[in-house]
Amino acid sequence: MELLPILLMLVVLFFLARIGNRVVEHFGIPGLIGEIIIGIIIANLTFGDWSLLEDGLELIMPEPGEDSTNTNYSVLYALSELGVIFLLFSVGLETKVNDLLKVGKSAMYVAVLGVIVPFILGYAYIELNDGNFHHAMFLAAAMVATSVGITARVIKEMGMMNKLESRIIIGAAVIDDVLGMIVLAIVKGVAGTDGGISVGAVAEVIIVAAVFVLVAIAFAKYAMPKIVDKAAGYARRKEKTQGVDVFAIAILVCLFMAWLAESIGLAAIIGSFLAGMLFADYAEKWNLSHKVDVLTTFMISFFFLHVGMQVNISDLKDTEVIIEAVVVIILAVIGKYVGCGLGAKAADRSLSKSSVNIVGVGMIPRGEVGIIVASIGLNTIVDGAPALSNSLYTVIVLMAVATTIIAPPILSKLYAKKYPPEAMELETDNNCPI
Amino acid sequence: MELLPILLMLVVLFFLARIGNRVVEHFGIPGLIGEIIIGIIIANLTFGDWSLLEDGLELIMPEPGEDSTNTNYSVLYALSELGVIFLLFSVGLETKVNDLLKVGKSAMYVAVLGVIVPFILGYAYIELNDGNFHHAMFLAAAMVATSVGITARVIKEMGMMNKLESRIIIGAAVIDDVLGMIVLAIVKGVAGTDGGISVGAVAEVIIVAAVFVLVAIAFAKYAMPKIVDKAAGYARRKEKTQGVDVFAIAILVCLFMAWLAESIGLAAIIGSFLAGMLFADYAEKWNLSHKVDVLTTFMISFFFLHVGMQVNISDLKDTEVIIEAVVVIILAVIGKYVGCGLGAKAADRSLSKSSVNIVGVGMIPRGEVGIIVASIGLNTIVDGAPALSNSLYTVIVLMAVATTIIAPPILSKLYAKKYPPEAMELETDNNCPI
Repeated sequence: MELLPILLMLVVLFFLARIGNRVVEHFGIPGLIGEIIIGIIIANLTFGDWSLLEDGLELIMPEPGEDSTNTNYSVLYALSELGVIFLLFSVGLETKVNDLLKVGKSAMYVAVLGVIVPFILGYAYIELNDGNFHHAMFLAAAMVATSVGITARVIKEMGMMNKLESRIIIGAAVIDDVLGMIVLAIVKGVAGTDGGISVGAVAEVIIVAAVFVLVAIAFAKYAMPKIVDKAAGYARRKEKTQGVDVFAIAILVCLFMAWLAESIGLAAIIGSFLAGMLFADYAEKWNLSHKVDVLTTFMISFFFLHVGMQVNISDLKDTEVIIEAVVVIILAVIGKYVGCGLGAKAADRSLSKSSVNIVGVGMIPRGEVGIIVASIGLNTIVDGAPALSNSLYTVIVLMAVATTIIAPPILSKLYAKKYPPEAMELETDNNCPI
Repeated sequence: MELLPILLMLVVLFFLARIGNRVVEHFGIPGLIGEIIIGIIIANLTFGDWSLLEDGLELIMPEPGEDSTNTNYSVLYALSELGVIFLLFSVGLETKVNDLLKVGKSAMYVAVLGVIVPFILGYAYIELNDGNFHHAMFLAAAMVATSVGITARVIKEMGMMNKLESRIIIGAAVIDDVLGMIVLAIVKGVAGTDGGISVGAVAEVIIVAAVFVLVAIAFAKYAMPKIVDKAAGYARRKEKTQGVDVFAIAILVCLFMAWLAESIGLAAIIGSFLAGMLFADYAEKWNLSHKVDVLTTFMISFFFLHVGMQVNISDLKDTEVIIEAVVVIILAVIGKYVGCGLGAKAADRSLSKSSVNIVGVGMIPRGEVGIIVASIGLNTIVDGAPALSNSLYTVIVLMAVATTIIAPPILSKLYAKKYPPEAMELETDNNCPI
């Protein structure tokens, strides 16, 4: 086993990822977009016959379609998957079960309709065009999940956290995360049922997914406080200090639940997200969020690079793919805007048009979540082929990138119009945790 | 690429490592010893024909001698190597160049003689017995480096940090770390010169190693403050906040210097140690140590497990190996005790016998550093064979484990005798960062 090529790969990729991250952040775009772009460049750079991926980086990436046992690629793959597992763990750490159960009617309506409408639009579009059931399911799932981090950043930077619309958006995003995980669990689970799709198999997957999520939520609400109390009492009696151990246990639970979810046919990130929820009430006290963020900082860049490296730019020479991308982006924007807007209006008829607008736009960015779903689709094998085609994968990545870039400036304008700043500095300082 | 077996391996190994860590800590032994023992058990457990390593964990470890492209083993190897690179980075973060240059005469003498005497003993023993030059060099290098973490913990727990002996030990340990890195650089570099060993080749390696270390030290002292000042000034002008970025840059520098050291024929950990020294003056302000410790916590267990997994218990059925282990342990204890004792006495003739005793015993533990050197020896190929034999590797691991277990209780007794506790609680609370 050779250390040198592994270190070289990590240094080069991490360096390029940070460059991409900083450059786009400079223009107010979330850093992950820059990392994806760098990945796309790495995978698609050619000079005549010479291609960076095949001739310059043969150590990193296997030939497309080849079942690789390449050491460097194994390491890149493992770090990128661990990165996304830890990322969803930290999202879970911010999802407190009690907040989830206390969320208001408006947020609940916004979340539910904001999941249903984009799902139906995405599913119907592919079913009517390409007709592949799994393609339709994964596109629909990728259109479901809002990346609230991007919206939350805009809201925080404008100092609008205490406004009604902001509270609805943040509340809805929490529910949206859980619903998104359930949708993904079902889509991935259905893709895992070999052979044809029967109503029985789908029902079984829905039950497994629902039971897994509900058991985790119930465990977080009822069992965790008792376990923590007992452990704290034991530690007091034995005069032990709690230190590194809590973190190690949290990591262990995260990896275990990721493995468990993956092994019952759901996605690993669903397990790590739920593991995060288990520890959400203690994340601050035990300083878990900061520690998990350190792991994520190191590893997640490799995930977004890898996402970009799987995009085949030559797909975009095909006019059909470009049209598909444009249609999917429009459906993704309309789906969330209309779904969430309807939800907000249905829950509270007194809500003004401008508030409905803010909520609708605030829920548009898909960010990393849509991309993660696409990546899972590409790596899920159904009847010997990936559950997503390469071109549809590229389309979803473009959709996630586009919604992430489009929404923040519109949202800032809508907020600024509704709540005119009084000598308030609007210049933003972008420091994305990712 | 399959995620499931990677996750399964990580969960099982991390779980077992933590168990091993906690069980030995319960008996006041540093946790890393428990992780090594778990590794030894994993690699050597058999029931009749069934062996855990070959039949239960064929996914994890390649067949001995096989050049593996096994995915799981690649991941385990990369995480364990990154773990030890980050561990040495955090040791470097605690090694401030200005402290290094200010260290007292006593500490300097203790460190230098504490390196020379064990090196000569180790080298002479193997040269006289087995006659293999590289075996002799690597054993000698493994006997050189003190693991001050273990001694520092004992001192801290007893509240003896302000005593004269403690200050000499801590000062000597800092110099010892740097000297140990230079010795390792030379030994590894010499092993990398193909063909026979010529005086010219050895001189070249010594020059490369010395230049590398001295340039890094000079850079840390003269260039870093200016760079940091400029960057801070720029950040102030642009009203940028420093955040995650500093950590990402530190990691990048760490990986780059690890790669650079490895690629010029030194060891990767020498690069990461020196990278840590570059940031030592800013480690606290930028919260780097805590962040690097998080990465280490997650990854270093895999290193110590892997160390144990490479120990072949059946070597110990050979009486010669047992005798060799006993002799090496005795030489390791005597070498440091006599070398450091002589150094302390030579620097300050007024030092009492009991103080000399404390300094000598305090420098005995080899801990992780001796083990890291052994592991590098096993993975360095000279003329088609590892630079260390398997049995000598096992002997060094036993030496490091034995010196780490033996020294702390003797040291506590010596301190307690010299500075009798007045109603002082001596019960220790072991919370090793590793």
